Amino acid sequence: MSIIEAAKAAKKASIDLAAIDTVIKDRALAEIVNELENRMQDIVTANNEDMTRSKNENLPSPLLKRLKFDEHKVVDVIAGIESLRKLPEPVGKTLDATALDTDLELYKVSCPIGVIGVIFESRPDALVQISSLCLKSGNAVILKGGTEARSTNRILWEIIKTASEKAGIPSGWIQLIETREDVTAMLKLDDSIDLIVPRGSNEFVKYIMENSNIPVLGHADGICHCYIDEGADIEMAVNIALDSKTQYVAVCNATETLLVNKNLAESYLPLLKKAMDKKSVELVGDERVRSIIDIGIATDEDWKSEYLDYKLSIKIVDNIKEAITHINTFGSGHTEVIVSNNKENVETFMNLIDSGNVFWNCSTRFSDGFRYGFGAEVGISTNKIHARGPVGLEGLLIYKYKMIGHGNIVDDYETQKKTYKHVKLKKEFKL
Amino acid sequence: MSIIEAAKAAKKASIDLAAIDTVIKDRALAEIVNELENRMQDIVTANNEDMTRSKNENLPSPLLKRLKFDEHKVVDVIAGIESLRKLPEPVGKTLDATALDTDLELYKVSCPIGVIGVIFESRPDALVQISSLCLKSGNAVILKGGTEARSTNRILWEIIKTASEKAGIPSGWIQLIETREDVTAMLKLDDSIDLIVPRGSNEFVKYIMENSNIPVLGHADGICHCYIDEGADIEMAVNIALDSKTQYVAVCNATETLLVNKNLAESYLPLLKKAMDKKSVELVGDERVRSIIDIGIATDEDWKSEYLDYKLSIKIVDNIKEAITHINTFGSGHTEVIVSNNKENVETFMNLIDSGNVFWNCSTRFSDGFRYGFGAEVGISTNKIHARGPVGLEGLLIYKYKMIGHGNIVDDYETQKKTYKHVKLKKEFKL
Repeated sequence: MSIIEAAKAAKKASIDLAAIDTVIKDRALAEIVNELENRMQDIVTANNEDMTRSKNENLPSPLLKRLKFDEHKVVDVIAGIESLRKLPEPVGKTLDATALDTDLELYKVSCPIGVIGVIFESRPDALVQISSLCLKSGNAVILKGGTEARSTNRILWEIIKTASEKAGIPSGWIQLIETREDVTAMLKLDDSIDLIVPRGSNEFVKYIMENSNIPVLGHADGICHCYIDEGADIEMAVNIALDSKTQYVAVCNATETLLVNKNLAESYLPLLKKAMDKKSVELVGDERVRSIIDIGIATDEDWKSEYLDYKLSIKIVDNIKEAITHINTFGSGHTEVIVSNNKENVETFMNLIDSGNVFWNCSTRFSDGFRYGFGAEVGISTNKIHARGPVGLEGLLIYKYKMIGHGNIVDDYETQKKTYKHVKLKKEFKL
Repeated sequence: MSIIEAAKAAKKASIDLAAIDTVIKDRALAEIVNELENRMQDIVTANNEDMTRSKNENLPSPLLKRLKFDEHKVVDVIAGIESLRKLPEPVGKTLDATALDTDLELYKVSCPIGVIGVIFESRPDALVQISSLCLKSGNAVILKGGTEARSTNRILWEIIKTASEKAGIPSGWIQLIETREDVTAMLKLDDSIDLIVPRGSNEFVKYIMENSNIPVLGHADGICHCYIDEGADIEMAVNIALDSKTQYVAVCNATETLLVNKNLAESYLPLLKKAMDKKSVELVGDERVRSIIDIGIATDEDWKSEYLDYKLSIKIVDNIKEAITHINTFGSGHTEVIVSNNKENVETFMNLIDSGNVFWNCSTRFSDGFRYGFGAEVGISTNKIHARGPVGLEGLLIYKYKMIGHGNIVDDYETQKKTYKHVKLKKEFKL
């Protein structure tokens, strides 16, 4: 099937999928779990094929690690689907209701976006996770995975397609495309794809953002900061910086730059260095930092770098304003922390920092859909519209206005025969 | 000032504007009203200059009409600002609150998007309306108006800028750019402009959508439909079709195509024609329609046309499914009406139609922010993400996650020393 045909089929299926009953969607998720369990061995075999081929083709070892999809991973994705199945139906929720007049009621009701394009590198678990999110939220999905994972992706797609369609989900709702040329074509399909969710490296996400007019939900960089304010609890400030940097370094919500107020630097930095040394973190700093602790030089390039590694850049700032300006200049709008005992400063920080997540006295690593309690995560967005920060199921939803009239015409209101009442209603949409 | 400098200045101002107090914003709106009143004569003089020049340059008369900005128009925009001023503060609203743990609280709080780019043709009232919406919602704005309105735009911009900055709004928050080259440059400024709101013809809006990676809020076409279901009240169906088509033809929520169930066509169409003839509406239809009433032929081109005029295309459909498929194929996702006495059909129609507004037994012309009771309107969006249908102030807002901790680190939860509670809180964000 060509990408154009695939997109048309997905668009067609998306219409019926938008109206499908919760029972059918949940039954489909249960069927998918069954089939993943039943075909565990086939999945592992397919993945071994991908792993062997990719080793022969000298795929770098971090990518090989992400490509691996063994029994453990299958069990993990099954747990994910089970928790998704337990979440309440996100479609058809009344978000707002207004009586425009006694016999004219307006309802704002949640509904799926339509067709979601998902482009991901290596990790086959992304395929399962995002497809089940799309199913639960009533969206059709077009998947493009990395070619190195083609056998694994194909069997996972077949399992999800077969199991869901058996349960009554409209045929064609899940499409898999496989060639690089298809991606280029996909990015141009503004007519049939409503939103693209990319999962992969920052270069990869940037490429997609720059080469499509379709809205993209995600983030390229995660350059997160901790700012240690004057008067902060020093021990807390060490612990938070340490957790933010080292709890898991290869993720977007790990801290990359530490900003330290000048009035606290002399007491704080030596303790910080001691703690970071224990975790073998490479530290680089500006001249003022280096006059207090013996570490490498940080340049402007460092302030813009997402290390994703055991490396941290440190800068001394004169005051909170300088910290805020630094973050708004070099940050990526992801997650920033202030460690402080001064409420006024915390308020300034939270209001003036232009990022999706602004925290007081806790680790940047909390910036995550599961930790936020969303139950399922579409991804983390640094967009300024639609959805920002960690995005749960609601990132795959929009709304429709549904109006119930009794023959009402606008002319009656324009000619003042009738007047609008605009009374807020506390009730659910019902015909 | 170059467009790059203007955008930088707007971005800088947007940071402080996001945190500005309600009192200052409302005072600024009051000052703007004062200045518009005080400088009424200067505004009219500037507009006369634009009108004279444009007449000499043979600007078409519909555009001249939209360019006109006389005392009446000033009074209108003043009324708009006054009603906007009375709306509650949209920034800083707590949208959701969760205790991740007893000492770790997460708040989702509304905030401005940042920098809004507004590109509009002719109508100078768009400048005032959208600037005051941006001010109220705490967004900086870069304005580009039609060159034919340059004198009017300049004085309006000066008035708003001076009055608002006098009231304490950060300098640079409102920028005016004037050349065509600046628009091309503006569409590329993804780094500093967060959202573009275009106001103008559909070709104009399409051009902008196709030439920028910045998200665009708006609609190109408004191809709205009425579907008259089998068993509908015939008189109601005539009245609704008439109002939807003729109440005001030059707007996006006027109906362009009427779909009529075959079982009702013979009784309905002659009555409809009689009513439409009285309003001098040109009717075109498919062969089946033309076998009942004597009108011109409709082609596929008609189903795709936004006439914005006294013209209506009519098609007979076999059943509701055919109506839905027609609308999803040829519609623009704007507003569709079903006139029916069958609740099951209404439900099917509302669920399967992929448009922002789906109405039962009332006119398409109700699809409007003021009629919906929003108090102020950014525009009508046919987007599938962020904001759909008529968009009020909240279309200019997004949110931030603000977290309050007490030294919490992720490692304690990963090592099971602590566990997440995820308890929903019913309280407003407060430090």
